[in-house]
Amino acid sequence: MTTHPLDTPCLILERDTVAANAQRMADQLARFNVPLRLHVKTAKSLEVASLVLNGTKSPITVSTLKEAEQFFDAGYTDILYAVGFAPHKRARAQALAERGARLTLLVDSIDGARAVSGFPALIEIDTDGHRAGVSPDGRELLIAIASTLHDHDAVCAGVLTHAGGSYQGRSHEQIAQIAEAERSGAVRAAKTLRAAGFPASTVSIGSTPTALFTDCLDGVTEVRAGVFVFFDLVMAGINVCQTSDIALSVLTTVIGHQSDKGWALIDAGWMATSRDRGTARQSVDQGYGLVCDSSGMLIPDLIVADANQEHGIIAHRHGGPLPALPVGARLRILPNHACATAAQHDRYYVVDAQGQVTATWARFSGW
Amino acid sequence: MTTHPLDTPCLILERDTVAANAQRMADQLARFNVPLRLHVKTAKSLEVASLVLNGTKSPITVSTLKEAEQFFDAGYTDILYAVGFAPHKRARAQALAERGARLTLLVDSIDGARAVSGFPALIEIDTDGHRAGVSPDGRELLIAIASTLHDHDAVCAGVLTHAGGSYQGRSHEQIAQIAEAERSGAVRAAKTLRAAGFPASTVSIGSTPTALFTDCLDGVTEVRAGVFVFFDLVMAGINVCQTSDIALSVLTTVIGHQSDKGWALIDAGWMATSRDRGTARQSVDQGYGLVCDSSGMLIPDLIVADANQEHGIIAHRHGGPLPALPVGARLRILPNHACATAAQHDRYYVVDAQGQVTATWARFSGW
Repeated sequence: MTTHPLDTPCLILERDTVAANAQRMADQLARFNVPLRLHVKTAKSLEVASLVLNGTKSPITVSTLKEAEQFFDAGYTDILYAVGFAPHKRARAQALAERGARLTLLVDSIDGARAVSGFPALIEIDTDGHRAGVSPDGRELLIAIASTLHDHDAVCAGVLTHAGGSYQGRSHEQIAQIAEAERSGAVRAAKTLRAAGFPASTVSIGSTPTALFTDCLDGVTEVRAGVFVFFDLVMAGINVCQTSDIALSVLTTVIGHQSDKGWALIDAGWMATSRDRGTARQSVDQGYGLVCDSSGMLIPDLIVADANQEHGIIAHRHGGPLPALPVGARLRILPNHACATAAQHDRYYVVDAQGQVTATWARFSGW
Repeated sequence: MTTHPLDTPCLILERDTVAANAQRMADQLARFNVPLRLHVKTAKSLEVASLVLNGTKSPITVSTLKEAEQFFDAGYTDILYAVGFAPHKRARAQALAERGARLTLLVDSIDGARAVSGFPALIEIDTDGHRAGVSPDGRELLIAIASTLHDHDAVCAGVLTHAGGSYQGRSHEQIAQIAEAERSGAVRAAKTLRAAGFPASTVSIGSTPTALFTDCLDGVTEVRAGVFVFFDLVMAGINVCQTSDIALSVLTTVIGHQSDKGWALIDAGWMATSRDRGTARQSVDQGYGLVCDSSGMLIPDLIVADANQEHGIIAHRHGGPLPALPVGARLRILPNHACATAAQHDRYYVVDAQGQVTATWARFSGW
């Protein structure tokens, strides 16, 4: 069937675009012979992961224990929980380990290190100041954390960094520089640990921009990335992808007009798009998303200019006239931030290159 | 039990605060002898609605057909779907009506009026230019829509307006002025319709700010409001409530620090708080939320200054030092926008005045 009978708003996923995005990342990492550890937080879908990983149960990255549990139940055993560990989550982590998961935890403090006894753990390294982690040159703290892990029967398996600052990269060259800071910082920290006698064999780095524009992965043992699976307007806004690479969109229906204002109203509000306004800080603000026709072709200069809970307001970017969008017309909205938009929905309607709906894939949420 | 064993992040709901907020709205509307038509989109929870409505199955407002179906299944029969109707939703609406729901639909165009044959319908009136609706003085269009309804076997049951612009009200006086524009516009439009021979007996108005600060409801037959049930920082920012009236918070755990920057990291990112930054446009920007201790007491000047998917960054509003917040410490985050924050979760952990968890109430999502 086509998307026509689907109730709106709902999420449309272009299967071939996901496959192409996955191939692009695979080709890029093959240049360096470094494996991908897919971040499953973007899609939270077994079917999407299976498509990206060609059906293998390759190592994955998770952002919640719920993701770890869901993917372990589906046969994934090598799981990295890439958020600083909260001590009270120990019982759930232990239950997974006892069932056979190789669950690696993340710490960036001595208190954190005390909480992960019995687990392999990575020390988080901060190479761009945007969030958590130890300075790559913080030798004393690195060794204190590794010693605490050792004293608490945990294995200091290595280091991890995430160059989240790359989302603000302004050019491919700048992203490549951020990538090199991410790589070299992580490698430097791992060397510090090894020189002090800790194993630290894992050097895990990654973000979608740095993974795709790095020139060198020397010393890196795995790359983590997630949003490349779908891409989004934030990624397109820093030229990491083209808008035609965006696999995800919100299908919506026109419900009214304010002709004096040049508005069309749609039944996709922020409940369907999320409140993410990530492009507001970029050179081109895409509002709550770019507007496409029902086949996914961009309609020039139309954006979702504002959103309430179940209403979106479509307007021309520069105040120009709208094309004919009668009540009942169907449109697709490209997301600012794929992780946030997808999280507003419980399923993907998967379409092929002809726009036929070929499957419905569930996604989960919660913690 | 206390909230201590709960995994984080999760939603905490203070039952007594909801009851007090419900009583405040009931007292206000009792002054005018006008009934409430509760908007259930904020909580999407049968138990919350039951608490607010004292167990009665009073008329309700919904923002999705999913809400209509869920509440109808629980015994609510008088349901207003207060979003402009999309023609393809007709089969679902009809199924509800055939099962016995008195479902009222909303239109603001001739095309919309053609799509609702067989249903009672309200005509949406726009009194503040913020979204959908016909001008209260657009006599010609009002009568054309009512005539189309009549010609298509639908009942022009009256008018509806929502003064969403009241969320930008800067004082109680200004909100009262917006409320009067909302009331008088709706009443004027209804009179126009009646003078032209249409029934138009319903005059439905409302938003939380205008409902609480109106001085006059002459000619109004019902008031719709939803967010008053929980309140939030956007409402506190325009003095519609105090922060102590906010019934909803996100329970979270400290997972790390960046002491040089004055940051504590928590396990509530935007997945738990939503991306809503509604206070960014107010005189005091609350970031992604105000920080309370685990009992719900505000910690002065601490805000969630930034958020990633599963990380929040707590900082002092003016760059001052943080209090001691060791790894594992528990905090509560007050939401910018209750509707958006609640939508990120699938349940409420209900606490009594002593902070004991007395119940878990489900909430639903989707369309």
